[in-house]
Amino acid sequence: MTGFGLERLSLNQATVKHLGLADAVALCVRHDIPAIGLWRDRVAEVELASAAALVRRAGLHVSSLCRGGFFTVRDADGREAVRADNVAAVQEAAALGADALVLVCGGLVPGSRDLGLARRMVADAIGELVPFAQRLGVRLGIEALHPMFCADRCVIASLGEAVDLALLFPAEAVGVVVDTYHVWWDARLALELERAAGRIVSYQVCDWVVPLPADVLLGRGHLGDGVIDFGPISEAVAAAGYQGYVEVEIFNADVWAAAPDETAVTVRSRFADRSRTLSYCSR
Amino acid sequence: MTGFGLERLSLNQATVKHLGLADAVALCVRHDIPAIGLWRDRVAEVELASAAALVRRAGLHVSSLCRGGFFTVRDADGREAVRADNVAAVQEAAALGADALVLVCGGLVPGSRDLGLARRMVADAIGELVPFAQRLGVRLGIEALHPMFCADRCVIASLGEAVDLALLFPAEAVGVVVDTYHVWWDARLALELERAAGRIVSYQVCDWVVPLPADVLLGRGHLGDGVIDFGPISEAVAAAGYQGYVEVEIFNADVWAAAPDETAVTVRSRFADRSRTLSYCSR
Repeated sequence: MTGFGLERLSLNQATVKHLGLADAVALCVRHDIPAIGLWRDRVAEVELASAAALVRRAGLHVSSLCRGGFFTVRDADGREAVRADNVAAVQEAAALGADALVLVCGGLVPGSRDLGLARRMVADAIGELVPFAQRLGVRLGIEALHPMFCADRCVIASLGEAVDLALLFPAEAVGVVVDTYHVWWDARLALELERAAGRIVSYQVCDWVVPLPADVLLGRGHLGDGVIDFGPISEAVAAAGYQGYVEVEIFNADVWAAAPDETAVTVRSRFADRSRTLSYCSR
Repeated sequence: MTGFGLERLSLNQATVKHLGLADAVALCVRHDIPAIGLWRDRVAEVELASAAALVRRAGLHVSSLCRGGFFTVRDADGREAVRADNVAAVQEAAALGADALVLVCGGLVPGSRDLGLARRMVADAIGELVPFAQRLGVRLGIEALHPMFCADRCVIASLGEAVDLALLFPAEAVGVVVDTYHVWWDARLALELERAAGRIVSYQVCDWVVPLPADVLLGRGHLGDGVIDFGPISEAVAAAGYQGYVEVEIFNADVWAAAPDETAVTVRSRFADRSRTLSYCSR
């Protein structure tokens, strides 16, 4: 099987930003979306045990928990707070049965221009977290963010770099998150997806809209509204052995302003269209 | 010599966007800046022969001409127009004695999501241009633009890709432009600068300002106003055998609004500061 049918669709909660967890879960059930990607703030609102029960009773699979990371902190107190927060995130991912805990690793250390320092801090912090994650059976997913976020959000700025980092650790403990928005531009993408074989723990999709809006964090669109050619990327993700769900995660002010049911319908139909395109391409 | 002293400074005309060619040349002379990077629209305003005479009489070196490229056009008529425009750009670069003609290669073909197609069109178009450029002794510089411009301005989105492309052609005909704003984030930068040995035809510097402004085209700052660590990049550019000028090229609404003499003073002093930092680092 090379493509992803609707039985692999997951709705990342950030796509319906204004819904609490219970409403987001109900939306998925109403629209026959079998999985959900959760965010920690929304989980915390209803408390962890209730959140886990809610999702389980609804029969939804938790494809990911967003997010841990932000490791690049200068002082020891700050690093200790980050460590504690990531431990909590691993515990939450375990309780929720999430396929992966997504790590957004952090930008440059405040006041520093040293990319190497920041990258070493990320590697060290992940290394520190791995034994605990292994004990709880949680898989960490290193997400490469688009290079435009390198300074302030994530110094891991290409998939190749995320793969290099993941390969330092056991495959059952650390993998990579592939998000089309962040990596579509990369001439080495096909190669790096091959190198990621057995290591992809989450596949997230949304489109790159042209022109980029004023707030580049919100420049994401529904599948088909932008320039990304999803077929070849999905093929390569599947060929790398990825067996999980495909999360639609859209940060976009217009999408957030839309009625959630309308958003769910669009997510589902656009995903189905892409699946057909993909099947067509792969014949 | 590993660093770049003030005798290697060049002012790219775009930094003082509101000045015509004569005023920009006079500004360089007034501030003891030995070279200038020219833009074709400002050259055209005074006509090519006058522009060449003006710069020559002022004793300025022309470190680059911006720019050719934008090769990714679907229809034959459009491609013919692009070809003619690039031929004209090569002629202008020759007449001005520019060290390089900067190529911004173009984004996705309008209406297409095929990155491979766009990249093949770029390679083909450069291949078509090379014999003419060689005849006129003009060196073409492929500029990798930041991945955030991949869709609409330049599908060559990393230095490695620019190097790969340049290596398809004779070294005296085709090289790469290294612009810190576009490539600073790349974990493979040191490696790709090594691979670019003997192929760097222009080195442009400006800083990456955080947060990115609403118009990402204008998110550049004076050296020191952002997060880029220029020392290691300049060292690697020098180690790759680059013997040319260092162009300060800043697209920034505030810089454009400043008095040009003030801008020139800032450019010069920030450049001198970085040179000192560099010398310190290289000891």
